[in-house]
Amino acid sequence: MTVIREHLSQAIIDAGRFLYGRGWSPATSSNYSARLSNAEVLLTVSGKHKGELGVSDLLAVDMDGRSLEEGKKPSAETLLHTQLYRWRSEVGAVLHTHSVNATVLSRVCLSDSLVFADYELQKAFSGVATHESQVLVPIFDNDQDIERLASRVQPWLDEHPDCVGYLIRGHGLYTWGPQMSDALRQIEAFEFLFECELKMRALQRV
Amino acid sequence: MTVIREHLSQAIIDAGRFLYGRGWSPATSSNYSARLSNAEVLLTVSGKHKGELGVSDLLAVDMDGRSLEEGKKPSAETLLHTQLYRWRSEVGAVLHTHSVNATVLSRVCLSDSLVFADYELQKAFSGVATHESQVLVPIFDNDQDIERLASRVQPWLDEHPDCVGYLIRGHGLYTWGPQMSDALRQIEAFEFLFECELKMRALQRV
Amino acid sequence: MTVIREHLSQAIIDAGRFLYGRGWSPATSSNYSARLSNAEVLLTVSGKHKGELGVSDLLAVDMDGRSLEEGKKPSAETLLHTQLYRWRSEVGAVLHTHSVNATVLSRVCLSDSLVFADYELQKAFSGVATHESQVLVPIFDNDQDIERLASRVQPWLDEHPDCVGYLIRGHGLYTWGPQMSDALRQIEAFEFLFECELKMRALQRV
Amino acid sequence: MTVIREHLSQAIIDAGRFLYGRGWSPATSSNYSARLSNAEVLLTVSGKHKGELGVSDLLAVDMDGRSLEEGKKPSAETLLHTQLYRWRSEVGAVLHTHSVNATVLSRVCLSDSLVFADYELQKAFSGVATHESQVLVPIFDNDQDIERLASRVQPWLDEHPDCVGYLIRGHGLYTWGPQMSDALRQIEAFEFLFECELKMRALQRV
Repeated sequence: MTVIREHLSQAIIDAGRFLYGRGWSPATSSNYSARLSNAEVLLTVSGKHKGELGVSDLLAVDMDGRSLEEGKKPSAETLLHTQLYRWRSEVGAVLHTHSVNATVLSRVCLSDSLVFADYELQKAFSGVATHESQVLVPIFDNDQDIERLASRVQPWLDEHPDCVGYLIRGHGLYTWGPQMSDALRQIEAFEFLFECELKMRALQRV
Repeated sequence: MTVIREHLSQAIIDAGRFLYGRGWSPATSSNYSARLSNAEVLLTVSGKHKGELGVSDLLAVDMDGRSLEEGKKPSAETLLHTQLYRWRSEVGAVLHTHSVNATVLSRVCLSDSLVFADYELQKAFSGVATHESQVLVPIFDNDQDIERLASRVQPWLDEHPDCVGYLIRGHGLYTWGPQMSDALRQIEAFEFLFECELKMRALQRV
Repeated sequence: MTVIREHLSQAIIDAGRFLYGRGWSPATSSNYSARLSNAEVLLTVSGKHKGELGVSDLLAVDMDGRSLEEGKKPSAETLLHTQLYRWRSEVGAVLHTHSVNATVLSRVCLSDSLVFADYELQKAFSGVATHESQVLVPIFDNDQDIERLASRVQPWLDEHPDCVGYLIRGHGLYTWGPQMSDALRQIEAFEFLFECELKMRALQRV
Repeated sequence: MTVIREHLSQAIIDAGRFLYGRGWSPATSSNYSARLSNAEVLLTVSGKHKGELGVSDLLAVDMDGRSLEEGKKPSAETLLHTQLYRWRSEVGAVLHTHSVNATVLSRVCLSDSLVFADYELQKAFSGVATHESQVLVPIFDNDQDIERLASRVQPWLDEHPDCVGYLIRGHGLYTWGPQMSDALRQIEAFEFLFECELKMRALQRV
């Protein structure tokens, strides 16, 4: 194993232990990945307990999501990861999680996007310097046909080069960053904002 | 102790530590079991702290729920465990837990079943491959007469060979799987869905 | 230190670590005690971090709540502990905690008692064998004059020899048992029921 | 490093691990500080993971918030810390946190202050001896211009020498104490009261 792969494997394994511990990757759900090179991505195989990942639960894929390792089948959602690495060269890590709050908020929000405004914590997202800006998060309807889902995500990414993450309805969150630590910081920020938004809606509902 | 019993004892003890830690088996509630053979089941004795189980807190029973160990009295709910092992030969582990959300949802839901639909996490249940299917969870009224309760559960199991779990109203959840890890994955999925459902009901209530 | 005192000191210290960890004894609140003999009780001194108690944070008092140790002042609420040891000789441990749910429920419930019914978990209380019984929990208005508060609690105890605990409004819970483990089991059961009750009220409110 | 700085560094690092663990300092948010002398304050640099602080993530500033260490830039919010040390000589530690509940409550509360009354836990604040008093917590609108924000806080501090903390809307909490342990006790008390208040509002909303 190369030094880079060893380092990124550990970063993914540690991220899984953290995200599972928070309850954001329950019941073997979620996929995590990190960029190995311009042509390769390291990704979790599907169906594993995310708090107990080992190095053998990861595989390298090419930028079209094809497995580069015999006998290991990439997750169905691989395409949603590689799409992001192809979209922007500075994306170094992608996290896809399934929290209760992301699931509930994406279902009760009937429009096709969420807007976060007037939260100091928006500054935790890359490129956001003040709570006076707005963070726009699109919500795509869930689809078991991942290719079709990816083709609905792509135009949105192309039109929003400053996008920091998106939701799939009833399913979960995708976010990313140059390093795994950036993607984890954004997950924490998103989950904080999801919880705020749900609590405010519960209080303000009439 | 046989190697199999040793292995399954540890699986039950570990499951208890996990489930108690999550708050799903408080105040000495809950029962866990695992199949020892076609004729025997290993089960927790009643009234023990589920986060601190030891090997002496387990006993073997036959498929009619009779103790096979002198001086150890099986829990009153033993019959609900053995019923499941008799129902399907691939059932290898059964978990019965008492979470706040299972209790509340089973009480506020006045109909005799819950339906989970449009959640990606439904795919965590055995035999479910898409969020477009529906997961049907029956709710049986609580009863201190376990034999009578079991006789109400049996027809439902017979009519629903794909059943993944059921609720007892104001009481808790029963779920199962080939291995303890499968039953634990299903507990996590159920608790995720219970929490989603309660949060959605709180937001959508008019 | 006697063996009994050493044993009970450790039980109180461990209880504190557990109860603080659960968030039921925040910000140096709460008092815990255990019976040393027919004439003496071991009690936490006031104002200490309950997750970090040491043996020097405990003192012996007599059954009227007077300190038996020079230089150590018993908590103002000592009388509510000794009252329970005098009330029933089988009381061996008393826990007084301050959870969010106990506080909120005691404030939103405008009547002078709570009734828990149809919860399987009621069986976790001493003397309760079925969910078909009811658990009655009185709520006393808070009072900084502890003697006056104790004099309002006493008639209720005298009329309800099967009492398993009580609430002080906006303040917290008192519960007890023969051993510390029994009192801890009852705390878990109470906190479970408080959370259920609050969630049900939030869903059913019209 | 002086013994005092070493001691205070450890106190800040430990506070960060605790506050991050509770979810009150997510996504690199929050600032913590401690008084080194009448002229100097030790403060966290900005943008660090608060659960993983090291001694190099701290810097000394003077009472006007100017860095005393080459190459280290103080956080934009430094002025809100030094303002408190200048305000009262007995302030030895200041904690600024970003919890979900502080954020939500400061946003749903449209008036310019919160009042806590009839909670026993109010006694956890310095100078409060009974639940019959009231704890007044001002809420200042958020502002990226920290100098302007500080100039709005100052008159309030001057008029309320018994102030125990304040909120910035959509942003977070400031509280303090003679020692770090006092500031931490007050954080726990505030977070307890925020959660109570939000739960009561959710139940009582009509």
